[in-house]
Amino acid sequence: MNRITVVKIGGNVIDNPEALSRFVADFAKLQGRKILVHGGGKEATRLSGRLGIETKMVDGRRVTDRDTLDVVTMVYAGLVNKRIVAMLQACGCDAVGLCGADAKAVSAVRRKPEPIDYGYVGDIAADGVNDRFIADLLVSGVTPVFCAITYDGNGGLLNCNADSVASAVAVGASRIAPTDLCFCFEKAGVLEDIDNPDSVIRHITPEIYQNLKAEAKVSAGMLPKIDNAFAAIRRGVDSVIIKHSDDLIKESGTRITL
Amino acid sequence: MNRITVVKIGGNVIDNPEALSRFVADFAKLQGRKILVHGGGKEATRLSGRLGIETKMVDGRRVTDRDTLDVVTMVYAGLVNKRIVAMLQACGCDAVGLCGADAKAVSAVRRKPEPIDYGYVGDIAADGVNDRFIADLLVSGVTPVFCAITYDGNGGLLNCNADSVASAVAVGASRIAPTDLCFCFEKAGVLEDIDNPDSVIRHITPEIYQNLKAEAKVSAGMLPKIDNAFAAIRRGVDSVIIKHSDDLIKESGTRITL
Repeated sequence: MNRITVVKIGGNVIDNPEALSRFVADFAKLQGRKILVHGGGKEATRLSGRLGIETKMVDGRRVTDRDTLDVVTMVYAGLVNKRIVAMLQACGCDAVGLCGADAKAVSAVRRKPEPIDYGYVGDIAADGVNDRFIADLLVSGVTPVFCAITYDGNGGLLNCNADSVASAVAVGASRIAPTDLCFCFEKAGVLEDIDNPDSVIRHITPEIYQNLKAEAKVSAGMLPKIDNAFAAIRRGVDSVIIKHSDDLIKESGTRITL
Repeated sequence: MNRITVVKIGGNVIDNPEALSRFVADFAKLQGRKILVHGGGKEATRLSGRLGIETKMVDGRRVTDRDTLDVVTMVYAGLVNKRIVAMLQACGCDAVGLCGADAKAVSAVRRKPEPIDYGYVGDIAADGVNDRFIADLLVSGVTPVFCAITYDGNGGLLNCNADSVASAVAVGASRIAPTDLCFCFEKAGVLEDIDNPDSVIRHITPEIYQNLKAEAKVSAGMLPKIDNAFAAIRRGVDSVIIKHSDDLIKESGTRITL
């Protein structure tokens, strides 16, 4: 099969209707076989607030009790996912919105309650992606659109980190065809100086990464994203690109390779 | 292709966790290719209430303003759909949850605002069902699970009646293979005496239907369901069965044929 591009779009873009609409139009234009993974944005937190459900975040992850799982399932798998699918259809991209339970596309294992009990939060199993199903969709010309709700293997759903879903789906896709993974967010890439959007680091290899870390030139918030990127590459993905959501179809951003 | 069974499960069953769980286990056991269409239940009304959104029903249809469309998209396409898919997976039935925007599976036309403005409510277009996509899923052994949110052809979503979605999907399926449509709800079938569950009318043909109507032997609430059934049969469906959700895999209920 031809190359596959897996694109992850972050929550801050989801929260900005104009940015989202520009991004969706660009994604629809993207050539070749492709898969979209989307974050949640603040809609789930807003809905929780309106319903009187307390939002608890620990280390940037949502503590997901039963009520919160219902909220994120409604918002991510329902509202955000179907809204994006409908927008893509209007741009001529034949999309199908999915959560991990659909065709067991993405299975996860519930995280142990120690040291922190995150509730219904999962980590994606090593063999957690149904690449055969994804391949079938791609071959029939359909673009899968994933939210970060995954399947627990036992009739239930688990909340997951969208970056992790994107990485896992890309690793799964790499078993079908050569795959690139692209993280789109509200910055131009990995910046040497977080306050200077022109300071994008164009290329990061493991060696360059060691030096950047030694010189403390990468902001702490980017480290998990870059570690994640290398992990995906080591498991079969060809390259990872981190770029601005407005630049999807432009050569830009930070390219990460071995 | 082998026969297809399209099953519609009503909102009252969705609202009853034990009844739903029994139904899902039976649906998973149902032999052959199959498609599930589910109603919404009272969850959308409850969520609207908690969010301070007024629920307005006219002739049994929900008036769907922008906020209500968001609520039904969250509840039907998110919460209820994905919950059922996860339950089916646990019963060994490989299901994929869909709304009408997914692969443009079910397209509708927004209802004219006169005489009543229902808002974002659609009627399914004559060529509104993507039977090729449904056939692809069935051939690859996957069971589609539809909620009653449809695509407006222009980047938006429309709320629809789940019985109408089931009929339209069954008519679409009948273009692929001989198709039976089964409406499951909380009664044993079409009853001659609404207070007597043993008074199920076993078989209704157009002739028998005329007599039943002339003798006023069918409750008014059942008339649209039966009219709908005949419409589906005239458009290609082999038979329609109306039965109790506990009786899915038993010979029972009311069979409607020409």
